[in-house]
Amino acid sequence: MVIEMSFTIEKSKAEQACKILKEQDIDAWFVWVRETSQMADPVLELILGGDLTWQSALIFTEDEKIAIVGNFDKDGVESKGIYDTIIPYTASIREELVKQLTRKDPKKIAINYSMNDVAADGLSVGMHMLLQDYLKNTPYLNRLMSAENHIQKLRGRKTAEEVSRIRKAVKITEDIFERATKFVKVGQTEIEIYDFFHRCMNDLKVISAWDVDHCPAVDAGPYKQFGHTGPTDNKTKNGHLLHFDFGVKYKGYCSDIQRMFFFGDTKDIPSEVQDAFETVRDGIQAAAKWIRPGAVGYEVDNIARDFVKAAGYEEYQHALGHQLGRLAHDGGTLLGPKWERYGESPMGVVEVGNVFTLEFYVTTEHYGQVSLEEDILITRQGCEFLSKPQEELICIN
Amino acid sequence: MVIEMSFTIEKSKAEQACKILKEQDIDAWFVWVRETSQMADPVLELILGGDLTWQSALIFTEDEKIAIVGNFDKDGVESKGIYDTIIPYTASIREELVKQLTRKDPKKIAINYSMNDVAADGLSVGMHMLLQDYLKNTPYLNRLMSAENHIQKLRGRKTAEEVSRIRKAVKITEDIFERATKFVKVGQTEIEIYDFFHRCMNDLKVISAWDVDHCPAVDAGPYKQFGHTGPTDNKTKNGHLLHFDFGVKYKGYCSDIQRMFFFGDTKDIPSEVQDAFETVRDGIQAAAKWIRPGAVGYEVDNIARDFVKAAGYEEYQHALGHQLGRLAHDGGTLLGPKWERYGESPMGVVEVGNVFTLEFYVTTEHYGQVSLEEDILITRQGCEFLSKPQEELICIN
Repeated sequence: MVIEMSFTIEKSKAEQACKILKEQDIDAWFVWVRETSQMADPVLELILGGDLTWQSALIFTEDEKIAIVGNFDKDGVESKGIYDTIIPYTASIREELVKQLTRKDPKKIAINYSMNDVAADGLSVGMHMLLQDYLKNTPYLNRLMSAENHIQKLRGRKTAEEVSRIRKAVKITEDIFERATKFVKVGQTEIEIYDFFHRCMNDLKVISAWDVDHCPAVDAGPYKQFGHTGPTDNKTKNGHLLHFDFGVKYKGYCSDIQRMFFFGDTKDIPSEVQDAFETVRDGIQAAAKWIRPGAVGYEVDNIARDFVKAAGYEEYQHALGHQLGRLAHDGGTLLGPKWERYGESPMGVVEVGNVFTLEFYVTTEHYGQVSLEEDILITRQGCEFLSKPQEELICIN
Repeated sequence: MVIEMSFTIEKSKAEQACKILKEQDIDAWFVWVRETSQMADPVLELILGGDLTWQSALIFTEDEKIAIVGNFDKDGVESKGIYDTIIPYTASIREELVKQLTRKDPKKIAINYSMNDVAADGLSVGMHMLLQDYLKNTPYLNRLMSAENHIQKLRGRKTAEEVSRIRKAVKITEDIFERATKFVKVGQTEIEIYDFFHRCMNDLKVISAWDVDHCPAVDAGPYKQFGHTGPTDNKTKNGHLLHFDFGVKYKGYCSDIQRMFFFGDTKDIPSEVQDAFETVRDGIQAAAKWIRPGAVGYEVDNIARDFVKAAGYEEYQHALGHQLGRLAHDGGTLLGPKWERYGESPMGVVEVGNVFTLEFYVTTEHYGQVSLEEDILITRQGCEFLSKPQEELICIN
């Protein structure tokens, strides 16, 4: 694991958090946490880096970043150099909390809850109850609102340094896929191949971008529905496909890429497989050509979904793309259909500096699923591929 | 990182969860989560091991364990062999959720929120709002209650296998301290010593029990207040103390131990240092002799706190001990004073099978703080030390 001892990214994100407030018509953003090594609000790694122990309040206004923390956390927070005002306490945070809010007197206070976006939903029910108790008999209780929009802008608008780390994570992922083209052979089990990826990750000092149980997902042959399943004893076989869903975390930032291998010569690729592959490859390109700042999430999903249906395949049962950053699923606008389980996230708008995945599968009659995933950065003109899109099936002889 | 591919512990904890229901007068325990790789309810690693992606419900009744999960998670959950009934969904969980609750018709449904205990407070505000929406127009909305007591019993009553993993984590921690007695020398920086501990952890294939930034905490000389601060360029010096707060995670279970080194001969130990050391050592022993099943948290804290005050020192500004398990701070009953920031947790009762730390510091006039921490298992008769208590200052020449 790469240990970050400097906090330049966290500092610039904390400053970005202050700047976005005005645009969102919010006077204060209030991050309210405790014992974050046990369950951390997902915003915390963006604007602090590290944990807080006792009940802690991070308050952002246009002109000041305030941290009220337990006395044992004070030195640690101070050493990061992110917060302007650091107030330690011992027995109870209540008094300082009310005092600081009274000093800043914000009219609208955004707190971290969201029905739609897990990345903006870091406040627990118990902590919310505590906050309501601490603020009773103050005017601030009735000034609380959701920070969903604020957090989505903050997470979504990647700084140059954030993009640079994601690029590096993508590059390392592609390097490992390149090594895999030399390692993978007919007759290996999914577990053997999974283990190879982990040796490469150790070697390159990165960790998996999601749950290590199924990162990478390795799917040999037509047996498994792609998803969140770990590797098995299934063996690679001549004439079969091999699917990967893989990402790494480099200095806290993720990649997320799917690749398809085929065992045999290019000339041996069955036409139903080739047709499926081209449909996925070209569907991703169609969406990439269409996406631009101002596009709405579900519109982008529709481009690929219509493309797939026009090609005669059943539509994929997930979203076309999610944002990528500190988290492999980084929240905010989703390039997904308007299904209930996605809430409002497909109605979000694409912005410059967002990083998205573009991914989907189609199902063949005899060879299982064919699925690809690329990573893109939204630019003023449209988008730039961060990954080098897979153009042909990677044939292993 | 040790990757667990078998789920025997999670299975036995899930079964324990069903058994505890009746005793707590609850008909169903309802765990309600999404995208847990981003923010996981702390109970999830106990009763699942691994992540869930879409909105997911794990429902425990006396006779059945039900998982309603996204279709891509189905195979992964099934392969663990923990749940009796696994129901996948695609577009929305709402219908299946209501259907399964109707089938079991529980009168009291415990959900994961708690003002006192972060380990029992895994439900987010947004997820709670979603649940209220899904259950409106059903009788179940008004049957929800806090699972705090249920979770505290489940986490706190360690199974034999859980205790065995904690023992192993403690053993590894003690081995690393033993190696450190040979490595540590006068003139090293805290960072050099911290790095040595991390090389040992890599070597022994364990990870840190808490935030890697300050695990181990390494405090050389009288300069720092002990707490959650990372290592610095402070150097070890003859006649000075060196303090460690260190724990490892072995197969998901934690140790948490503090040790004190002194640079010089035993005969060089200043009397104020020796007196402080003996006060801490003996205060811990006094609490250990007193603790037993049925004791209330704050009573145990009082034993050590009174001991310290009687010895003429200022009392420590934290709790005497916390539980230890999957988490370094494992929630439930706290051996702490009745301060507002600890909520109700010091009023909890000590039970057989609980694992606690016993830890505190006193402050010397010229040499900074002296602090120790041991790990104990509650037995029917009282307690057993899992760590070998430090009896004398470890002298480094």
